[in-house]
Amino acid sequence: MAVKGIIRPERDVYILSSSAVVGREEYKGPLGKYFDVRDGKDDSFGMKSWEMAESEMQRLALNGAFAGSVISQADVGFLFAGDLQNQCVGSNYGLLNFGIPYLGLYGACSTASEGIMLASLISGATGRKAAAVSSSHNCSAERQFRFPMEYGGQRTPTSQWTVTGAGAFIVGTAPEETKHEGRNVRVADVMPGIPLDKGITDINNMGAAMAPAAADTILRYFRDTDTSAEDYDLIITGDLGREGSGILLEFIRSEGYDISSVHNDCGLLIYDEVMDKHAGGSGCGCSAVVMAAFILEKMRRGEYDNVLFIGTGALMNPVVLNQGQSIPGIGHLVHLVSED
Amino acid sequence: MAVKGIIRPERDVYILSSSAVVGREEYKGPLGKYFDVRDGKDDSFGMKSWEMAESEMQRLALNGAFAGSVISQADVGFLFAGDLQNQCVGSNYGLLNFGIPYLGLYGACSTASEGIMLASLISGATGRKAAAVSSSHNCSAERQFRFPMEYGGQRTPTSQWTVTGAGAFIVGTAPEETKHEGRNVRVADVMPGIPLDKGITDINNMGAAMAPAAADTILRYFRDTDTSAEDYDLIITGDLGREGSGILLEFIRSEGYDISSVHNDCGLLIYDEVMDKHAGGSGCGCSAVVMAAFILEKMRRGEYDNVLFIGTGALMNPVVLNQGQSIPGIGHLVHLVSED
Repeated sequence: MAVKGIIRPERDVYILSSSAVVGREEYKGPLGKYFDVRDGKDDSFGMKSWEMAESEMQRLALNGAFAGSVISQADVGFLFAGDLQNQCVGSNYGLLNFGIPYLGLYGACSTASEGIMLASLISGATGRKAAAVSSSHNCSAERQFRFPMEYGGQRTPTSQWTVTGAGAFIVGTAPEETKHEGRNVRVADVMPGIPLDKGITDINNMGAAMAPAAADTILRYFRDTDTSAEDYDLIITGDLGREGSGILLEFIRSEGYDISSVHNDCGLLIYDEVMDKHAGGSGCGCSAVVMAAFILEKMRRGEYDNVLFIGTGALMNPVVLNQGQSIPGIGHLVHLVSED
Repeated sequence: MAVKGIIRPERDVYILSSSAVVGREEYKGPLGKYFDVRDGKDDSFGMKSWEMAESEMQRLALNGAFAGSVISQADVGFLFAGDLQNQCVGSNYGLLNFGIPYLGLYGACSTASEGIMLASLISGATGRKAAAVSSSHNCSAERQFRFPMEYGGQRTPTSQWTVTGAGAFIVGTAPEETKHEGRNVRVADVMPGIPLDKGITDINNMGAAMAPAAADTILRYFRDTDTSAEDYDLIITGDLGREGSGILLEFIRSEGYDISSVHNDCGLLIYDEVMDKHAGGSGCGCSAVVMAAFILEKMRRGEYDNVLFIGTGALMNPVVLNQGQSIPGIGHLVHLVSED
């Protein structure tokens, strides 16, 4: 097996439970009914700051994931988590009281995929249960990366809307420990991404910065496994949005593959066109909630059997962009199969 | 084995190589001669910004680690990295051109230990080689967390000095792949930390915020393995500094153990008292360079056989502290043994 190739967990590992918590806009969107918990009022989740609201979403999401399994927090050996806030405080504070050994991640919007990947590998290696949580909050992210919402700044057509949401996943080796109905979802194998920087410097066009790295991972995966689009029911990217998805399909086509018939993107699924979110959703919470609530549910119902999930991230901060750097992207792949 | 207990890598895993890059103050300190690369002039490493200087240190450190082994970058399957800059850009940009599958971490000053831990577990599970890199830069960190250096602000007695340095480690299962002379250093087992928040709100007293979590990990480890201080040549904490080290010894004593005869701290080793660094060094680079250059070298020479390294981190950011939150700490443990 290639040094940089796919990795199979050493034991069979399953996503035993998942849960998604979202804000008002996400609840109004086409996936609204799938989400477990929402704040339909003001996205504050009863907290005094947007930062603490995001932490509260993480806490609620992990609680929800526990409720979807027979597992208690005392049974979980590892908790992988991250978010977009500086120093990942959304996760640090939100998950503090669970008392679970904690491994902080920074993968930008790819964090959900990075967390599921590492949780699955470590669970497969040790036989212990692991959890992965990630989140974003529109108001904490926008004021940190661009402008406070109160400015009412105009957004460009390629800009994406940072999702207010948190998703949590519990993985383990005993599929009977789930309370979710339907088929089991197994993490068949994973492939970590290699960062790529193609010179994009526009903070309002993250999709373009992330698409080349997503394409690189998908192409490496196809070649390593000798498969192509026909072998999968769905190839879903993290949050490339409209702009980035177009670039992805183009990149992959230029290498002799066509995934357009099975490709979708978490950033395109979460909002309707009429919701004025421009190029779609983004943020660590975007793929986390779409996977946790919608895609996994469809896999449990048997609507998808064989899914490639490629979480994508833009690995920058505003300081280095102001210093003239361009934006590296990354795409981590998790291969999911549903089984009886 | 307890769910939250120690974990042994599934194959024997060794730290095959390590390298440390430091700034001027660290080179002037008592460990100066051990470091591989330094910028003795102005800590810019030839770059135009402090942020890019930090990235350059990471690049140099990983290059140095490759030089200390027969391994090339094409042989490495996983690269775990993180730093203190917002969105971990020190790592993202510094390691971009290595082309290695990249898993970003956020563990604050515990990142070196978190990286060695995950690299060892994944290397042990897959048989592939992995690397871990972390860094901090005094000038990028101080202006982000406290004040720009140019203000010349007065520092409090409990404050620690953010180390300018980057450390890199390459782990793998074949000890003959090292070029370092002397004994082999094996990662015997690890124990991830559980975050704890004891209510410290002073950004100039990180040691006090981190000490309870370090104590918790050490005590859990002693109980899980039925060992105590007498079983180790050295118990070295990440960077509690003078204030935090005192609190750690006190905490551990209150639970019936005494580690004072074998305890040291990376933050106390790196500067001399006369260097006016107040409570000692800190930052992701502190334990990274002290371990990479000094402790591992002493283990290779046979001066230490059996070492517990507990990397410590403070999981906060200035925004949430300004909002009135206190500072959670964490301590990840890596157990190292030297062998012929």
